[in-house]
Amino acid sequence: MDDKLKGVFAAALTPLKNDLSVDYERLVSHCRWLLDNGCDGLAVLGTTGEANSFSLPERIRILEALFEAGIPGASLMPGTGCCSITDTVELTSRAVALGAAGILMLPPFYYKGVSDEGLFAAYSEVIERVGDTSLKVYLYHFPQMSAVPISYDLIERLLKRYPATIAGMKDSSGVFDNMAGAAQQFPGFGVFSGGDDFLLPLLEKGGVGCITAVCNIASSLSAQLYRAWQDGEPGCEDMQKNLIKVRQAVSTYPYSASLKTLLAHFSGADDWLTLRPPLVMLSENEKADLIRLFISTGFTPPSFG
Amino acid sequence: MDDKLKGVFAAALTPLKNDLSVDYERLVSHCRWLLDNGCDGLAVLGTTGEANSFSLPERIRILEALFEAGIPGASLMPGTGCCSITDTVELTSRAVALGAAGILMLPPFYYKGVSDEGLFAAYSEVIERVGDTSLKVYLYHFPQMSAVPISYDLIERLLKRYPATIAGMKDSSGVFDNMAGAAQQFPGFGVFSGGDDFLLPLLEKGGVGCITAVCNIASSLSAQLYRAWQDGEPGCEDMQKNLIKVRQAVSTYPYSASLKTLLAHFSGADDWLTLRPPLVMLSENEKADLIRLFISTGFTPPSFG
Repeated sequence: MDDKLKGVFAAALTPLKNDLSVDYERLVSHCRWLLDNGCDGLAVLGTTGEANSFSLPERIRILEALFEAGIPGASLMPGTGCCSITDTVELTSRAVALGAAGILMLPPFYYKGVSDEGLFAAYSEVIERVGDTSLKVYLYHFPQMSAVPISYDLIERLLKRYPATIAGMKDSSGVFDNMAGAAQQFPGFGVFSGGDDFLLPLLEKGGVGCITAVCNIASSLSAQLYRAWQDGEPGCEDMQKNLIKVRQAVSTYPYSASLKTLLAHFSGADDWLTLRPPLVMLSENEKADLIRLFISTGFTPPSFG
Repeated sequence: MDDKLKGVFAAALTPLKNDLSVDYERLVSHCRWLLDNGCDGLAVLGTTGEANSFSLPERIRILEALFEAGIPGASLMPGTGCCSITDTVELTSRAVALGAAGILMLPPFYYKGVSDEGLFAAYSEVIERVGDTSLKVYLYHFPQMSAVPISYDLIERLLKRYPATIAGMKDSSGVFDNMAGAAQQFPGFGVFSGGDDFLLPLLEKGGVGCITAVCNIASSLSAQLYRAWQDGEPGCEDMQKNLIKVRQAVSTYPYSASLKTLLAHFSGADDWLTLRPPLVMLSENEKADLIRLFISTGFTPPSFG
């Protein structure tokens, strides 16, 4: 387990310019800020990061920009799962070549109601075509968004065929029994919760951490809880409760819009306030409501200085 | 209405080679066969054609291959809607430059529960960036697959802003009232049924035709019905019933697998039997069952000679 990823990961936001192109400079600063403020790693190019709203060349450029800026590959778990296996192979190969420690891989998500046999074939084809022993795949289970769930049967089948490659799962289903059950049923399979609300309970059931949107603003809280739990310190329950309170405030509105609003507010950089369609920014009233709610939790993000 | 697309369109299959690459030669032959056997047009790169299982360069190459082979642009309505607006813009621009008469455009389909405001912004951004007056957009309403419905409010808003560009819709919801209602509510807006079962009833309510998977094998039947209805001939009801019988046999299994099985059987070319994961081919028993059911309808596809 020691070489496997664990701890607190941010599902990092992707800052944009007014013309909807990626603001690479701000992305690099944000990633550095996250690593300086508790994050063990960065799940860039995920749902919160609007990955599927970017073309393949744009996603590759995002990865290259991070590596060129010296963001350590050991801290990176980029999302690379596309609808097309040829796209997934290209993006995954590039991420592995650049040194990404893990890959968060959505199943092909256009076709619904596909069989586990079909999903196995898709993951299998990607793994075989990438053909790199340093590839570590984390399956991305997010049925509410992908509408293509990852079943235990699929995990079992993939683990049996690719034991050195299938490293774990991000479970964003919000169903605690599913994530805890996977952690218990598959020893050594690293299960991350997709929500901060289950960080402590999942660690107690053998999970390895969390990968969350809220970490974009409050990774210091999740990290404090994770360290306290690792060191067997008291107060973990209270830290979890506090984290849930912050999470509730942030989740009043859709995550990407909500978090970009909060980062704009606390960093003073209004450039944060751009999303790619189909996501839209909050109204002025919603922004004010969110900021008020967030401040009322009593949590203040670390300085952006 | 006269310059608008109408009639019987096949949601054309994409034949593959054993290595999962596109068999361009067979695709061109299939498209010619469809046009020779009743199809008014070809909705290539749709759901049945596994479009989202191909990369952007692969999709562009498919379009180029069709145009190079002399398939008339006037008959083409390629699917170009991707999750990323940058991808959709690139593919749409290429299709328009090559002369495609219409474009079938899925909404961005990764994010679920997005607002009409967000979908309007996405379509709007694509239309503005393509910036070509010859662009004719058909909205693709297929909530069971995309999980992102096209509402009447969205249609109304788009028609108001882009009256010369928003040409119609393919409605694959299977909800007759939705397609008939759209045809009645928006005069001049060309509504195609996504299923053969509603071809006649939708024509009677002001719709313009159908775009279906079953047309890959039975376009001669849909075309016969469409011509008879146009010419006010008797027997349309019976033709519709017969078409439904054929459709029911084909839809015993998922369309792409089912239709590739039938084309392999009737054309004698086993090369048809390849799908890209996550779709999978039928088992031998399923194939035999399907062929038996199909033959029992009494319909024989036109010669492939």
